[in-house]
This record gives sequence, C-alpha cells and structure tokens, in this order.
Amino acid sequence: MSGNLPRIDGERLWRSLMEMAEIGPTANGGSGRVALTDLDRQGRDRFRGWCIDAGLDLRVDRCGDMIARRPGRNADAPIVVTGSHLDTQPLGGRFDGVYGVLAGLEVIRTLNDHGIETEAGLELVNWTDEEGVRFGGGCLASAAFAGRYTVEEVLARRDPDGLSFGDELQRIGYAGDAPCGGYPVAAYFEAHIEQGPVLETEGCQVGVVLGGQGQFNFMVTVRGEEGHAGTLPMTQRRDAFVGAARMAVALSELPGEVEPPPVITTGFVRVSPNSRNTVPGTTTFSINCRHPEAATLAELERRIRDLVAGIAETAVLDVAMEKTSEAPPVTFDGGCAAAVRDAAAALGIAHRDMVSGASHDAFNLARVVPTAMIFVPCERGISHNEAENAKPEDLAAGCDVLLRAMLSRAGVA
Amino acid sequence: MSGNLPRIDGERLWRSLMEMAEIGPTANGGSGRVALTDLDRQGRDRFRGWCIDAGLDLRVDRCGDMIARRPGRNADAPIVVTGSHLDTQPLGGRFDGVYGVLAGLEVIRTLNDHGIETEAGLELVNWTDEEGVRFGGGCLASAAFAGRYTVEEVLARRDPDGLSFGDELQRIGYAGDAPCGGYPVAAYFEAHIEQGPVLETEGCQVGVVLGGQGQFNFMVTVRGEEGHAGTLPMTQRRDAFVGAARMAVALSELPGEVEPPPVITTGFVRVSPNSRNTVPGTTTFSINCRHPEAATLAELERRIRDLVAGIAETAVLDVAMEKTSEAPPVTFDGGCAAAVRDAAAALGIAHRDMVSGASHDAFNLARVVPTAMIFVPCERGISHNEAENAKPEDLAAGCDVLLRAMLSRAGVA
Repeated sequence: MSGNLPRIDGERLWRSLMEMAEIGPTANGGSGRVALTDLDRQGRDRFRGWCIDAGLDLRVDRCGDMIARRPGRNADAPIVVTGSHLDTQPLGGRFDGVYGVLAGLEVIRTLNDHGIETEAGLELVNWTDEEGVRFGGGCLASAAFAGRYTVEEVLARRDPDGLSFGDELQRIGYAGDAPCGGYPVAAYFEAHIEQGPVLETEGCQVGVVLGGQGQFNFMVTVRGEEGHAGTLPMTQRRDAFVGAARMAVALSELPGEVEPPPVITTGFVRVSPNSRNTVPGTTTFSINCRHPEAATLAELERRIRDLVAGIAETAVLDVAMEKTSEAPPVTFDGGCAAAVRDAAAALGIAHRDMVSGASHDAFNLARVVPTAMIFVPCERGISHNEAENAKPEDLAAGCDVLLRAMLSRAGVA
Repeated sequence: MSGNLPRIDGERLWRSLMEMAEIGPTANGGSGRVALTDLDRQGRDRFRGWCIDAGLDLRVDRCGDMIARRPGRNADAPIVVTGSHLDTQPLGGRFDGVYGVLAGLEVIRTLNDHGIETEAGLELVNWTDEEGVRFGGGCLASAAFAGRYTVEEVLARRDPDGLSFGDELQRIGYAGDAPCGGYPVAAYFEAHIEQGPVLETEGCQVGVVLGGQGQFNFMVTVRGEEGHAGTLPMTQRRDAFVGAARMAVALSELPGEVEPPPVITTGFVRVSPNSRNTVPGTTTFSINCRHPEAATLAELERRIRDLVAGIAETAVLDVAMEKTSEAPPVTFDGGCAAAVRDAAAALGIAHRDMVSGASHDAFNLARVVPTAMIFVPCERGISHNEAENAKPEDLAAGCDVLLRAMLSRAGVA
C-alpha cells in the first residue's frame, strides 16, 4: 500500500505557514499570537476557514481546543489524531506549533486531492495555550484532555493581571461546549520543529521522538520592604529585587553541578512597585527546570528549595514558592514511534531516534493514547525566538512522514 | 510682628490630607496617583476646587504645573512661592509631596481667616511629576521652570509604553498655556516629610534643610539571545536576565566599598519577552545613585560603568547605558534656611540643620531662586511605601514654620 501513497504538497504547506504568520507579525520576522488574545482569535478564525474549505467537521471543546474531523469508513473505529498549537510566545517564531497544525491540514488536503478514504476517522486538533505564557503552565488544555486536570481547574486559572482562562476564552469566542477528551483514540502523532540543534548538526531530516524531559515550574514571590531610594541606607534595606537577583544567578549556576546537566530558566520577572526611585518591596519570578530523569528532577527540586530559602534567610526576606505545574519524564508508544521510523525509512529520509528537550501537548496525550512525535530540523536550533526558521524541504519531509504514519494506523483500502 | 502671627489649623490640614488620600487609595492604606494618570487628574481636580474656594487665581503652565496666586499689596514685588507635588509612587504614601502642597494651602487659608495681607504676592504650586515613575526622571517640570530643560524637551519625554509626557498631559486636561518660569521670585520654601529616620530618632519636629545629595540615573539595556527554556543548553545561553541580575547584585554591594557610603538602587526592571519558557533576550533596568559629594559621584559613575561593562563582557552580552538624568549636590540659600531656623526657634519647636537624602523640586528651584526646605519627621523614616505615616502635631508644627518663613520674606504690615 505504502508505495501507492501520494506525496504532500510542500509548496502549499509553506504557503499556509506564511499566511498564518501574517497574523501577529513581529518586528523581526517572527509571530506573536499569545493564547487567548485577539491575535490568537484571528489565527483561529483563519484556521477555521481552512478546515471548512477542506470539508472537515469542526467542533470546539470546553477548553477551546479546535477539533476538525474527517470521517472514516468505519464510524466505530477509534480515530487517529494529529495536531499541535497555533498560539506562540510573545516574540515567537513562525513554526513552533503552527507547523504541526498545518502539516496535519496538509495531510488532509492531500488525502482529499487523491480521494483517499481511511478506515478510521482522522482528527486534526489546535490545542489551546500550549505555550503557557499567561496562566502559569503550558499545555493546559491537552492536560485536561488527558485527565491531568479537570476542565474547571483549567478555566479557573488566572494570568498575572487576574483574568481567568475561562473568561478570556469566552471573550475571544472560543469557549466551546464539546466535551474535552473522553473518547477512544487509536493513535496521536504530532509533527514539530526540533527546537534544538541535533538534527541539523547530524544532517537528519526527521527525528523519531521516543519521549521527553520531565519538568517542574515554580512561581517564587520574594517580599522585603519598600523604601525611598535616596534616604534608606543600604545596610537597612530589605530589597526584594536584589534578593531575587541573587537567587536567579545561583539558579543559573546550579546545572553545572549536576551530570547530565539540567536546564534551569528564570524567564518571567515582575518587580513591584517597579519605580526607579523606590527600593523594590516585592519581586515575583518563575523557575522552570527540566531533566530526562525523574530521580534527578526530585533531587533538583530539593536543592532549588534550599537555595531559595537560604538566600531569603540571609537577606532577611520573606519568600513563598508556588509549584505551578510539574510533569514527569515521558516515554512514547513503541508502536507509534516505529510507525514514524518505518515511514521515514520507506521514503528514504535520513532520520534518528531522539528525546525531546521541549515539552509538547503530545506529552499529555501519551498518558492516555498511543503517541509519538516527528521532529524536523530548525536553523541553529533557535526557537521561542523571532529568528526561528526551518527549510521548506525539511517541513515537507516531516509532513510526508506524518501522512504515512497516520495512514498506517487509520488503515486504507 | 512674629508674635502676632496666627497659628495654622492642624486639624484642617490633617482633614485635607485625608481627603486627598481618598483619591487613588491602595490596599494597605497608601496612595497611588502616578503622574499624568486619571487618578492624578482627580487629585488635581480636588486641589483646584480648594484653591478656588480659597479665592486664589489658578493658572496652569505648559508643563502642567498648577500655580495658585494670592496677590500682595505690591504687584511689583517678587513673589514668595511654596509648593510640592500631588503625584505619588505607584504604591506610595499619603504625605510625600502632598504635605507640602496642602501645608501651603493651609498657610493661605489661615491668612484668609485672619485677613492678613502680605506686601509681596504668594504662590502655591503643585509641580507636575515629581516622582519620575514613568518618564525616566523626576522633577522634570520644576527642572523646566528652572531652565535645566526646555519645555519641549520635557513634553517629548516618553514612558516605557511610548506615551509622551505632552500627550498624557493633554489627555488628563492639564496642558496649560502659561509660561513655565521666567518671572522674579523672592523665595521658595517647600515643606516635606523627611523620608528618613533622623528627626524621629533625635526627637526633633523640624529639620532646617541646608541642601541635598546629588544623583545620577541610568537606564541599562542588556541584550543576549532568546531561546527555548527546554532545549538550549546552559553553556550556550546568552541570558539577558541572568546578566542583569549579576549587575544588580554587584551594584548593591558597591556602596560598602565607599566612605561615606552612597545609596544605589535598581528599582525598575523589565524582562523581555518575560515568558517562563523562554530564555530572556533583553532586560532593561534602572540605576539610581546618590551621594552628597560631587567628586565621589563622579568616581561612582566610573566604577558603575566598569562594573556593568565587565559583567556584560564575561557573559557575552551586549549592553547599552543611557544616562537619563543627573543632578549635582545642592546647597540651599543661607538666608532662606535662616528664616526657617528662626521661625522654628520663635515657636519653640525642636529643630536641627540637615541635608536631604531624597531629591525634591526645591533642588531645581534652588538654581534660580533663594530656596530652603522644611522637614518634619515620618514614622521609622519609611517613605515611597504605603505604610508612610506622620503625626498630625508634627505636620502642624512644620506648617506653622512655613507660614512664618513665608511671611518673613513676603512682608506683612
């Protein structure tokens, strides 16, 4: 069968990627469509139009996930799902997430072009808020799909301005009423740029992703005492920002003491009152820590808690650490990974097995359905950056692999 | 004459302070009326009403300064001016600035109550944006009054969101057309809480302020490279926030190496893109450095530049330092200071000479007119803080001194 399968249209895929990038363009060629903003709505609206044009049945679930179905011959067969996300970092790239959604769309367009029916139905999903910019954790909607959180817990999440996930979903018109998850799925495949340098360095077009790093996230609030910048002697200060800065520096040095090294990032910082003439009274900052081994993650959490508490004590600052989310290391389904590997081999595409450094909605899906991911190279491994880039031929190769992996699970005549 | 002068009404002064604090109240009992916001407008509107009720002629100059005049018998005599500011820090107190404006109002109300005419006219000023929260420098309007900047330079200043001083002034309805400065002034007195612990510690009700610290301000922009928090190895990162944090920690330690020690503050911090899953590409932060000696300030500037450049070089980060403002140490007019000292002595109020740790609009006025300040104690020296507090009897004592100092310069029959 495989030999008769059509190839996807790489130019059409690229064109759709560039058309999506017209929404929320950033000054330096990237994309900014933060989840549940007006620009996210515009991106969703464009995708909805494409799904309708492709003849798909679109529904929106209670977490705002957009699910486009292409029915199969056998309505009782568990469906085969692909997808990713259209939301981006505030200064993100054109490919992170978007590629997985539009590669899935290109698979369906190609099947439509060639009149190919599948035994099981196919679904294409745009997961809500993968990036986790606003609500203290990423992949929240796919986590609800997988039963890690209830829908109510996700909708109640608030951003730093106090706006809730649920209210913002209502505001942009994507608060659906379809249930989030809870139906049988045969397999989930997600195509994505690697977001690291391995494939490019090794000259591979496709990564067969076997699993991913675990991680935990903290939001740390350091409280000292505000004071006048001109009159409060240095020796009497309880400066919340200087304390937080000491913590961030120490956190950045911790990975050098662990083998293999984790990654630890302070990406979000908020200083209050944030006035140059006032000694900061409060500073809030994030800690993201990732490692492939569960035992090492547990040890890192202990060390990070000690480090933060020790600096706070020395500086006479109060500190509160809220663990906003955590996820264990993930192992994908061997059969799904084999389907990806076999497809790449059949197409003569250079490929290698690998572990994902970034986390993805697929990590949540893997808890409840057989899952694998398909990586393609991105330039210099740069991602979460306006300069994020990928080659049309690599994106097309990954999409061809996705088509074959999906059909291997959905079944064609 | 002095023996016949009336005492101000301390209860009325306190009541006015509390009524102003109804505008922009903060959660913990402070005030938040940042310059050129809607709350600043509301505070100005309330003050305008009080000036009109007191029979004053109110004009607004091109920088938004509100100037209320009480004519004297001799229209040709240079006027005697008092004032301060109604704008506050984002989480400021009820007294910083507000006291000086409303003490001036109480002086005028008292003169009205007793039908006291002065030879020279009196003016009461609410200076625009003393606090410098938004536009990269405080006391900008009084600086224009004193000719340190042109009005156009002040109006062109922009806040971090790109809004200009002039446009925001228009928006709140306080872009006046009166000239800013340029007329003869006999003396300027400004009453203010000390914002430090000296008067309280020494049991004095009034500080005779002889001058103040000099200072300089930098806005520092550190640029590295954004990257994905999960995939970019620590060893390959150019993390702008970690670099800025190292600088802030080193800056906080520098004062310990200088005698007498300066104060150095990083009060404003902005991280971009400020997402917990992205290695920060850019971090902007403020440096405020103050010291009473000009030579030491120059040496501190050199050391701060070296410190910032050295950390940036080690961390392979780009750095730009913009000096947003600077002001030399200030010496007030001996005659005006003597008028304050004599008034306190005549009233039997415990007082001492001192240097101001904070800067004030009076620092600008001192460049062009004979100037002195009157300090009163504040609780634990806490200021630029919602917990800022002062005793009604101390505020009344300072106001009585202000009345006598002003009349000694304006002349009464």
